[in-house]
Amino acid sequence: MAIDHTALLMTAHKMADAARTAILPYFRTIGLASTSKEAERYDPVTAADRASEQAMRAILAQDRPDDAILGEEFGTKEGTSGITWVLDPIDGTRAFVSGTPTWGVLIAARTTDRVILGIIDQPYIGERFVGAKAIAEMTGPMGTQTLAVGPAKPLSEAIIFSTFPEVGTKDEAAAFAKLAQQCKLTRYGMDCYAHALLAAGYIDLVVEAGLQSYDVCGPIGVIEAAGGIVTSWSGGSAMDGGQVLAAANVQQHQAALAVLKPYATDTSNV
Amino acid sequence: MAIDHTALLMTAHKMADAARTAILPYFRTIGLASTSKEAERYDPVTAADRASEQAMRAILAQDRPDDAILGEEFGTKEGTSGITWVLDPIDGTRAFVSGTPTWGVLIAARTTDRVILGIIDQPYIGERFVGAKAIAEMTGPMGTQTLAVGPAKPLSEAIIFSTFPEVGTKDEAAAFAKLAQQCKLTRYGMDCYAHALLAAGYIDLVVEAGLQSYDVCGPIGVIEAAGGIVTSWSGGSAMDGGQVLAAANVQQHQAALAVLKPYATDTSNV
Repeated sequence: MAIDHTALLMTAHKMADAARTAILPYFRTIGLASTSKEAERYDPVTAADRASEQAMRAILAQDRPDDAILGEEFGTKEGTSGITWVLDPIDGTRAFVSGTPTWGVLIAARTTDRVILGIIDQPYIGERFVGAKAIAEMTGPMGTQTLAVGPAKPLSEAIIFSTFPEVGTKDEAAAFAKLAQQCKLTRYGMDCYAHALLAAGYIDLVVEAGLQSYDVCGPIGVIEAAGGIVTSWSGGSAMDGGQVLAAANVQQHQAALAVLKPYATDTSNV
Repeated sequence: MAIDHTALLMTAHKMADAARTAILPYFRTIGLASTSKEAERYDPVTAADRASEQAMRAILAQDRPDDAILGEEFGTKEGTSGITWVLDPIDGTRAFVSGTPTWGVLIAARTTDRVILGIIDQPYIGERFVGAKAIAEMTGPMGTQTLAVGPAKPLSEAIIFSTFPEVGTKDEAAAFAKLAQQCKLTRYGMDCYAHALLAAGYIDLVVEAGLQSYDVCGPIGVIEAAGGIVTSWSGGSAMDGGQVLAAANVQQHQAALAVLKPYATDTSNV
């Protein structure tokens, strides 16, 4: 069945608008109640997360009842259309509870083999990064602009981001350190926002580990539309999460992959 | 001579407005030319830095010619009024060149012994955090609100920030790690924006080392007006920079100080 990309994008924008409306009343609410999903690592899940995903699912129920859904908070809904929506209602909940403006709502539509639409939305700033068929653009405080990744450059000129300095396991941290020390500048703490910066051409590499599918499908849609590359550390598909390497350009991607590949746990492409 | 706090604040807002206008045309300009001030650490200084400080100095020349100025880019100007303006035209230039929205313009007015006005301004988001006589407020996308630090709490419930995981020297990094491991959540990469989050009550501790006076006087003005505490790691004045500890509350300050004090290089208060 042919995909109506215009309809898909219209629904995605409605979802992002609804998520904004649902989340903002909770943002920077002092004493925000949060519960921890993992004992050993602080991972707050707030009412905002749930309100955001519910708002997006309500729109899908109305507009696209035949599509499947994979969401962080409310799991999987089967579908018959061949399209799956992959939703992270708030990526960066630790950033969210700290009041930083670099968390985001992640929306993706995928088929079996690829992401066909991605959105990274930052409700507080009012920024939306969109990748879809023949579309790569962002809207924000300074208006609308086309998204395009930066040029090819050696690692010694590259800016690299990861959310946490510890990255993941000890081996994964070692791999990141090995790569980062060859780069011009290393920064931390941006969650999905780093992927948006890469799509917009400001930074060159984002390396993460331990991601879920819903953490990365939205970014894949945005970055690929802007001309960038997102793979696993072995060079395979990153759609299912795990160890993820996003690069602005083939040169940066190949150079980073050479460092990370020996540490890849997904060895299907090695 | 009595200080006219209303006039002081009016000038400070004009300076922050002028800095915004000067900087924004440069922000997220692909291929931004930057030069490195230090050989061993990437520290870009851009045309935006200089334009911002020039715009602020032009207002001071007109409004307050008798005040002294200490600015990052253009050094010291002597004065006769007893008031010194301490200016960081862009705090977080590494964040700036990476496109992140968490750099800021820092403005402070100080006397010999204390900061009497502080502003942290984020031009892209359109957020301004202000501390002045009988004023502690922020204006941003969600309107204007009063700034007030969070409540007393044990370290095990505290959120702590530092800009770089390496903090400063090896000893300073060790001190930070010792403190951070007792906290609930540690985040990096926010520069002056972390101080704004502390003043607004969202986080509990910001620990930095190697700061300059212009990196910290603006934050001191904002945080103290909001009810927080900023000192050196020995508990002394932080106005001249160096090792800086900002805390939301006496309880967090005392607990953090107990960990950091043995690593303090400013031993005047130990």
